[in-house]
Amino acid sequence: MPISSKIKASLSRTSWIRKMFEEGGRLKQLYGAENVFDFSIGNPNLEPPETFHQTIKTLIENHRSGQHGYMPNTGYADVRQQIADHISKEQGVNLSADDLIMTCGAAGALNVIFKAILDPEDQVICPSPYFVEYGFYVDNHGGTLITVPSTPDFFLNMDAIEKAITPKTKAILINSPNNPTGQVYSKVHIEMLANILKQKGKINGKEIYLISDEPYRKIAYDNIEIPGILSCYENSIVCTSYSKDLSIPGERIGHLAVHPKAQDKSDLMQALAMANRILGFVNAPALMQRVVARLQGEQIDSDLYKHKRDLLCNGLKKAGYNFTLPKGAFYLFPKSPIPDDVAFVNELQKENILAVPGSGFGCPGHFRLSYCVSDDTIVRAMTGFEKTIKKFVKR
Amino acid sequence: MPISSKIKASLSRTSWIRKMFEEGGRLKQLYGAENVFDFSIGNPNLEPPETFHQTIKTLIENHRSGQHGYMPNTGYADVRQQIADHISKEQGVNLSADDLIMTCGAAGALNVIFKAILDPEDQVICPSPYFVEYGFYVDNHGGTLITVPSTPDFFLNMDAIEKAITPKTKAILINSPNNPTGQVYSKVHIEMLANILKQKGKINGKEIYLISDEPYRKIAYDNIEIPGILSCYENSIVCTSYSKDLSIPGERIGHLAVHPKAQDKSDLMQALAMANRILGFVNAPALMQRVVARLQGEQIDSDLYKHKRDLLCNGLKKAGYNFTLPKGAFYLFPKSPIPDDVAFVNELQKENILAVPGSGFGCPGHFRLSYCVSDDTIVRAMTGFEKTIKKFVKR
Repeated sequence: MPISSKIKASLSRTSWIRKMFEEGGRLKQLYGAENVFDFSIGNPNLEPPETFHQTIKTLIENHRSGQHGYMPNTGYADVRQQIADHISKEQGVNLSADDLIMTCGAAGALNVIFKAILDPEDQVICPSPYFVEYGFYVDNHGGTLITVPSTPDFFLNMDAIEKAITPKTKAILINSPNNPTGQVYSKVHIEMLANILKQKGKINGKEIYLISDEPYRKIAYDNIEIPGILSCYENSIVCTSYSKDLSIPGERIGHLAVHPKAQDKSDLMQALAMANRILGFVNAPALMQRVVARLQGEQIDSDLYKHKRDLLCNGLKKAGYNFTLPKGAFYLFPKSPIPDDVAFVNELQKENILAVPGSGFGCPGHFRLSYCVSDDTIVRAMTGFEKTIKKFVKR
Repeated sequence: MPISSKIKASLSRTSWIRKMFEEGGRLKQLYGAENVFDFSIGNPNLEPPETFHQTIKTLIENHRSGQHGYMPNTGYADVRQQIADHISKEQGVNLSADDLIMTCGAAGALNVIFKAILDPEDQVICPSPYFVEYGFYVDNHGGTLITVPSTPDFFLNMDAIEKAITPKTKAILINSPNNPTGQVYSKVHIEMLANILKQKGKINGKEIYLISDEPYRKIAYDNIEIPGILSCYENSIVCTSYSKDLSIPGERIGHLAVHPKAQDKSDLMQALAMANRILGFVNAPALMQRVVARLQGEQIDSDLYKHKRDLLCNGLKKAGYNFTLPKGAFYLFPKSPIPDDVAFVNELQKENILAVPGSGFGCPGHFRLSYCVSDDTIVRAMTGFEKTIKKFVKR
């Protein structure tokens, strides 16, 4: 067997998800794509803002010498400065170009961070439910992901987090607005978390990093405030991508920002730049760096997602489903009407509805629906959602 | 100390290279960039072909729904098919879309390959001199790079390779046209190597991968033939980028191609796709995938690099330097006139000439010059090259 044993094991572990996606493909071929209600993936259905296309056109029509060549591994200095200016307001901390590294999306940023900070057997704490890829990102660089349950309404469980911290804890990774729950942590939550990290850091004799994965920051509803992590804790790193707010997930562009007062900051920035280089990213894609720098403050219309949320939530509530109302992102994480979430997702499939079981997010008994789909898909899927719950719940 | 111990050690090991680059920056500030002759980095000075800009413009002006969204982790199927059609001729083996994965450049491809195939303590053999990043790429995924010397004129040393193969050998990594030597391996060389791998594979009871890193394939001189690796050995993987032949290294676009008859091919392709996903690349940048698919067969004019090679080689020969004439790529790897290559490179620096010591490529006693610079830089640097060698060599 010529492939890595670890990858081989991962392939067989995840194969039931693959089977589900293959089943989706089969259903689409059988019944036509328009008759399959695919809530399984977070591929935004909105188009990028027109300024995105215009900006690329302008850059290409006025192309300069070396525009697609190498630049520092951290990205163009002017791009980083423009973004630093913008996110200083957002985060409530004054950042400079040197505090930022342009990355191949948030997934690239997280791999770079873990490569830069983890020693073998270091632990990274993550509240569950959580984006399943986090486990791979930490494991890639020799660390172990330690998951701790959230509260029933998907807020941070401070007691559980405090208990999970050991001398091996290197970082805690949070994600708000959250995938898969759509929950948003308030400033009070972040400050409570920061206090725990400060106290435990003192006891451990080493700081614990707070890593905030924020690709959904700009997709939030009902005027909810998304607090700036950097303003709450010095040893923190924020990463994000432009995948969701500009609807360009295929372009792999994002950045990470380090608190200017993080411990051993200069070492950390050098380590991050080196990790970006040697992991094979080398640098974030050149053209897209210039594009996103010029589009700071631009985003798709999140009211369109809010409309989809309301369509889906109102429909499912009427049908008898239980869930916490998402305050951001474009995911809903309802309770499965039966304990076996995989079985329930299979039942939904019989109605041509594709969802992902909560087990895939470390949280069985739930399922995830990505509502970044057409309004029509939501409306037409409702009969299937109703029919399926009626099989299990007598009202 | 909050960063990884391994990265910390790497940072201090490579710091003398960093110091050299910093010295370059200092010289440019002191004397003006035009008076510093920077042969240190392989950042192509030629502009991309005009069709590159035109293709982007056309794609943007006629943009389709979802054009910048997610696609399979392996890349667009139609893009892979177009490239497969093209490289089937180049490699002499019939490839389909399913044999290819689009990657974030060749650096991304190599990391994906090593993640997919390496178990802890597996060994990867590489002829030296070699591109120093290879050591990091293998180490990132738990393997060990075993270097073996090449012949004095930088061809493969078959005896040394054969002796280096152990039961832990998982792959051999070759790079032709070579960085830093410019040497090109002939079909006979590759066939000899393939025979060794076949025999040793049988003895070890497991196949040894032949990995060919080919970013300079299209920059070759004097009508030299660059053989198709896939036509010589079934258990082989070819990777490349469009960085050098289209002069777009900042865009991070490349691909890997697996021999259709590689052992356990289906497992291998799944492992590679998963590695591309979990390492945080997710997929190669979407727009650039479509661009390079439409530019198959296009490239910068390599005669311009040939002219630079001849300018540099004729000048240095006259000055008394010894070297093997490069047959491809845009690097020259002369012997250092004194055994201490770092000291000699420091002497060149006094003439405002920036080069990289051979020690940085596992081959002391040499130095590397990247001649992807303006003709003017080469011509004006010649006085400094002459002056420096005269300090050490009496003619």
